[in-house]
Amino acid sequence: MTIHNPLLEDLLKGFDTSLSHSGVNGERIARRLYELSHIGFTQVGGVKRPGFSIEEKSAKALVKKWMYGAGLDVSEDGAGNVVGRLKGANQDAKVIASGSHVDSVPNGGNFDGPLGVLSALEVVEAWKDSGFTPNKPFEVIIFTDEEGSRFNSGLSGSRAMAGEINEEEIQRLRDFNGADLEQVLEDYGSSIRDFKNAKRDFNELELFVEVHIEQGKKLEQENQPVGIVSGIAGLAWLEVEFYGEAGHAGNTPMIGRKDPLVAAAEFIQRVSEFPQKVSGTAVATVGKMAVSPNGANVIPEKVSLNVDIRDIQEQTRDQLVNLITEEARNIAAKREIQVEIKQSTKIQPIPIAENLKEKLAESLKKFGIKPTYIPSGAGHDAMVLGKHIPVAMLFVRSKEGISHNPKEWSSLNDCVAGIHVLKDFIEKKMME
Amino acid sequence: MTIHNPLLEDLLKGFDTSLSHSGVNGERIARRLYELSHIGFTQVGGVKRPGFSIEEKSAKALVKKWMYGAGLDVSEDGAGNVVGRLKGANQDAKVIASGSHVDSVPNGGNFDGPLGVLSALEVVEAWKDSGFTPNKPFEVIIFTDEEGSRFNSGLSGSRAMAGEINEEEIQRLRDFNGADLEQVLEDYGSSIRDFKNAKRDFNELELFVEVHIEQGKKLEQENQPVGIVSGIAGLAWLEVEFYGEAGHAGNTPMIGRKDPLVAAAEFIQRVSEFPQKVSGTAVATVGKMAVSPNGANVIPEKVSLNVDIRDIQEQTRDQLVNLITEEARNIAAKREIQVEIKQSTKIQPIPIAENLKEKLAESLKKFGIKPTYIPSGAGHDAMVLGKHIPVAMLFVRSKEGISHNPKEWSSLNDCVAGIHVLKDFIEKKMME
Repeated sequence: MTIHNPLLEDLLKGFDTSLSHSGVNGERIARRLYELSHIGFTQVGGVKRPGFSIEEKSAKALVKKWMYGAGLDVSEDGAGNVVGRLKGANQDAKVIASGSHVDSVPNGGNFDGPLGVLSALEVVEAWKDSGFTPNKPFEVIIFTDEEGSRFNSGLSGSRAMAGEINEEEIQRLRDFNGADLEQVLEDYGSSIRDFKNAKRDFNELELFVEVHIEQGKKLEQENQPVGIVSGIAGLAWLEVEFYGEAGHAGNTPMIGRKDPLVAAAEFIQRVSEFPQKVSGTAVATVGKMAVSPNGANVIPEKVSLNVDIRDIQEQTRDQLVNLITEEARNIAAKREIQVEIKQSTKIQPIPIAENLKEKLAESLKKFGIKPTYIPSGAGHDAMVLGKHIPVAMLFVRSKEGISHNPKEWSSLNDCVAGIHVLKDFIEKKMME
Repeated sequence: MTIHNPLLEDLLKGFDTSLSHSGVNGERIARRLYELSHIGFTQVGGVKRPGFSIEEKSAKALVKKWMYGAGLDVSEDGAGNVVGRLKGANQDAKVIASGSHVDSVPNGGNFDGPLGVLSALEVVEAWKDSGFTPNKPFEVIIFTDEEGSRFNSGLSGSRAMAGEINEEEIQRLRDFNGADLEQVLEDYGSSIRDFKNAKRDFNELELFVEVHIEQGKKLEQENQPVGIVSGIAGLAWLEVEFYGEAGHAGNTPMIGRKDPLVAAAEFIQRVSEFPQKVSGTAVATVGKMAVSPNGANVIPEKVSLNVDIRDIQEQTRDQLVNLITEEARNIAAKREIQVEIKQSTKIQPIPIAENLKEKLAESLKKFGIKPTYIPSGAGHDAMVLGKHIPVAMLFVRSKEGISHNPKEWSSLNDCVAGIHVLKDFIEKKMME
């Protein structure tokens, strides 16, 4: 069965061709997004390109072909990260890098990842077409397995580059087929030794800047094509279990009940109210919950839930974690039930330097775009690199905020606007 | 594998033999509970006697044998209800009846049902041993399939006797094997025609009184062996679904979220607070709940939950249903999300006449027991009969309130105390 893939026509429909200028070519971007979309194309119009899969490898091979065409020196490290390097006029200067990933979630869309890679590459294409040679070296990077659908983990390529994946994790990782990292790397054409050697000296790098779809609705609300990421939120996960006393719903008087669901309900309410007390960018969400035994006429015995807590400042994020943890204990104490709280994940937020945000704002204004500042709630490869070098991020407007879904959509006009801003920003950084 | 069944020794351990008087024989009760416990005995020490099963039939056959021994006229209707009748001195008087059931939930205990049947039979045994002839006819009744594990329904025998099971339900019922009622009745040795003929003329009956384990902890708290059921609560079930807007937990600002779980949390809190506003006996419970898509980093799209609402007065029960329904709508409106509410079950509460409760209280006091009034949250065969004739119920103290479980336990002392009260009450009613 052949399925019609309307991505190219849909992208070109309504494209404002006057946006193709200064060497940036909207039709090339559309065609490249379209060509990538065929690799791992799913029956429902999305893509499936898990990290280290033949599909991810094919997508990288296609981008490599374009990199060669654009005159880049192409290399790939043992973690599968692809680097296309453009020599700068000053070969001793530190590198400015930009990129993203080409893997996807199991039924993903066509923009999350590819747009960042193609945007960085388009800057090179534009320079080539306009005969511009940057002062400093420039790298277009494709990171491996950002989404994490391979090992239910994520950011594998950038973390390998940062030397963050230790021996314990290397031994522990198992993919969706139960294969260990050694097997997965061997199938991919690498090895544990080469994977470890992917660790890079970040002293070579001055800055990493990533273009990504917003995955939220702020730009849509503000009616702006591109926005500035104000910081990358650090995630903390709490696993909370309330233990009460089960009983017959009909035969247990209200007074004296120890109902863990009523406790959990009070807790969920408070969780939704606390973020605004600590900062305007903090968020906290209970998305996952299980009631046990879950019988219509049984007072529950146990309620388990997950709290997802994020902010772009570590201090306010941790303050929120503490507030929420304390509240769970207070509610349990007040209701004379038991509570167990485990912190299962804690990732450091990555601030973005004020001077970089100012420079991005200047570039936006140059193209008539009003600067909108948006915290990135999700992690990105820039988050991993941000622990070692300055990073910056641009968000491109995302239709209805939908992502990780075949319906993911950013208009070509918005994508091209993002590339112009990226190019202008990088050119300014090249001058410094 | 033979499993040792310690029920008899456990019952006799600590039995105060002075409680065996006036013809009531504690050891006989213990032995009969023990003999019944072998029918459908499970590996974990409970019983499995679904309605209309060979095990329920065997249990009835054993009780029938005892009924014959006690001099009763025994008959069985087309729904499998067994009636053991003792002629009264005045044969034209209306019948006083007592009994319960011998079927069980899939892994039930030894007291829920059998105690009520054996208590009624023990009254007859006591009269026989003491040469007493009641003024009015007396019936010991075993109702079929009270628990409902056969058809996921319940009270089949008493409802058939009340003519409540209509053609639509007869056609609809399917048992755990997918068999329809006709097949189940045929296997049991009856037929649809005979089942319909089980409908009885309730004008023959003056009163039905049922002894049952409490299935709650009130008597344990009050330190009393036996208590008076103040009324049988009517159950109403609401199925509530809150629909919000899913989103990424990291990328969706708190302001503007339409999180159905936060709405449900507010609702669950209110549900736990409302019963005390309408009456001291009302209860409301959310025991079953599902969050969708139930991902740790996804704001839920939908939350479904069940509310179980009961009270012994129809007026306050309905007032509570209305309060809760209104609150769900208010919360949804306030939070700009959708809510759907369906009332899936509604059973009429059965009040118990004041004069019967007074007579029961007199009997309790005669045996030095302080009257404790307890609403019955669960339905019983007395609830079905209560729509047609006066009913009364006695609860026997239940260890830790556990029921529908092999650990179900009432001490023999408490069981025998219950029989003395029942006998005294019936004897008073025989005199009227």
